[in-house]
Amino acid sequence: MRQTMADMVHRIQDEICDALKQLDGVEFRQDEWTRPEGGGGRSRVFSGGKVFEKAGVNVSVVHGTLSPQAAKSMGGGHELDGADLDFFATGISLVLHPHNPMAPTVHANYRYFERGEGKKSGSWWFGGGADLTPSYLFEEDAVHFHRVHKDVCDRHEVADYTRFKQWCDDYFHIKHRGERRGLGGIFFDDVNDASREDCFAFVTECAEAFLSSYLPILALRKDMPFTPEQKEWQQIRRGRYVEFNLVYDRGTTFGLTTNGRIESILMSLPLTSRWEYCHEVAEDSEENRLLEVLREPKNWLQD
Amino acid sequence: MRQTMADMVHRIQDEICDALKQLDGVEFRQDEWTRPEGGGGRSRVFSGGKVFEKAGVNVSVVHGTLSPQAAKSMGGGHELDGADLDFFATGISLVLHPHNPMAPTVHANYRYFERGEGKKSGSWWFGGGADLTPSYLFEEDAVHFHRVHKDVCDRHEVADYTRFKQWCDDYFHIKHRGERRGLGGIFFDDVNDASREDCFAFVTECAEAFLSSYLPILALRKDMPFTPEQKEWQQIRRGRYVEFNLVYDRGTTFGLTTNGRIESILMSLPLTSRWEYCHEVAEDSEENRLLEVLREPKNWLQD
Repeated sequence: MRQTMADMVHRIQDEICDALKQLDGVEFRQDEWTRPEGGGGRSRVFSGGKVFEKAGVNVSVVHGTLSPQAAKSMGGGHELDGADLDFFATGISLVLHPHNPMAPTVHANYRYFERGEGKKSGSWWFGGGADLTPSYLFEEDAVHFHRVHKDVCDRHEVADYTRFKQWCDDYFHIKHRGERRGLGGIFFDDVNDASREDCFAFVTECAEAFLSSYLPILALRKDMPFTPEQKEWQQIRRGRYVEFNLVYDRGTTFGLTTNGRIESILMSLPLTSRWEYCHEVAEDSEENRLLEVLREPKNWLQD
Repeated sequence: MRQTMADMVHRIQDEICDALKQLDGVEFRQDEWTRPEGGGGRSRVFSGGKVFEKAGVNVSVVHGTLSPQAAKSMGGGHELDGADLDFFATGISLVLHPHNPMAPTVHANYRYFERGEGKKSGSWWFGGGADLTPSYLFEEDAVHFHRVHKDVCDRHEVADYTRFKQWCDDYFHIKHRGERRGLGGIFFDDVNDASREDCFAFVTECAEAFLSSYLPILALRKDMPFTPEQKEWQQIRRGRYVEFNLVYDRGTTFGLTTNGRIESILMSLPLTSRWEYCHEVAEDSEENRLLEVLREPKNWLQD
């Protein structure tokens, strides 16, 4: 499974980067890196394209020994006795920040993890998910994004859209703001309640669905007109994105405490962001319409 | 001491705000807030002035009951048995981010803390410090800032500049970057190794010295010419400031976990910041001269 998953994430990275390159016209910068403690990755990032302010699509295949602190900060391994600190992890992680404030930021991440030899019960698992973070609310975009992911979940017994949707809303919670980072999607961890092959099939189909979940939304929004005030609101929302990633995100914490490649971990941060003291939005504004669904997540699908 | 310290920080807030208003011409916005669990504060913030991109000078006087997590994340109280979770805290905290990339950001914070009734050994203490964060290195600015603080320390037996300077370099360490946030200054916590009055006298003199430590530097730098590239470098350094505050800063963590006033806690973040993937500076550049002293802190004073 180690090799199978590593091959899959590299293939998906190629597919996604090819599609984005065609859309944006800019070449990704590629960095292949190795980690002194074991393994490495292939990071592809660009900024200043026609469509994207910053876009990163990274894969990594790493192994080594966890610190007890790092072991605690990640999912899985709950049935282990704490002695199995050897780990193997491979995954793909991407974050796309478009220029246009009408076009949402998107994040997706799919990963496979082993502790020890990966043979004991609970010593391997899959995790991942995808979530959409707009600055302005277009309900049909949320519906489309959730629909694509629900359809994938519905085809796999190991997946449960309702649970994974809730998990996403709970995970991307900026507690000190009482807001979710965005409109959610799906999030899951510790997926090992079926054969490794069945779990892999689910995660693979999620990763393959990424482009169809996002590109149609981007096509609708990337050339919409916008005002400087709307661009500024996007920058404030970017600030919230930074707050979530640096204060709460487990992947970031895990990376920073396991001597990961800093530039690859922090590629998720937007190119620019803004913090206005006591920024307020008008009651009947589009900005407030977004805030309402960030404060009280909605079920976007009726069935 | 609770009242004495609270009076002092309010007086210093007035003095500093008056001086900054005179310099910048903009009125501070003032927010008086109360905390449901006990106490409150007076926040003064402005952005978009002539000199400052964003400036905040806050005081607070709060009390309540700590969560065990919050009790761990703060200094002091080491001799307590963990049962004294009642607390009282008052202090002043300020962060000034000037527009001009040649003018440094500055931060200062002075606080008094009690746990339980504040009578047991180790149940009260003072903390604080001040540090300078430039985007470009002017050695004479670092020397002046450190000199003012060393002179204060030298007049108080409870203070030790050499130790507090080292503590500052250690505290403002962005570990994942291998850089300090800035050129340091002094940092101290758990100061209770003298009478309460003597400790208070030291902290008061530090707070009173703030304007003389910073204004002469600002006067030299605020109107210097600069290029768009230098402004962009400042924005990248602002990004590092955000990384430190959200990932490592104990005051921020403490505020976020004790239901502090979010806007007052996060007023320390710059108005705007930037994350460039794999940003690099030329070996013989001014940007690199700064990085060198952030990576290897210097002793700015020869005596």
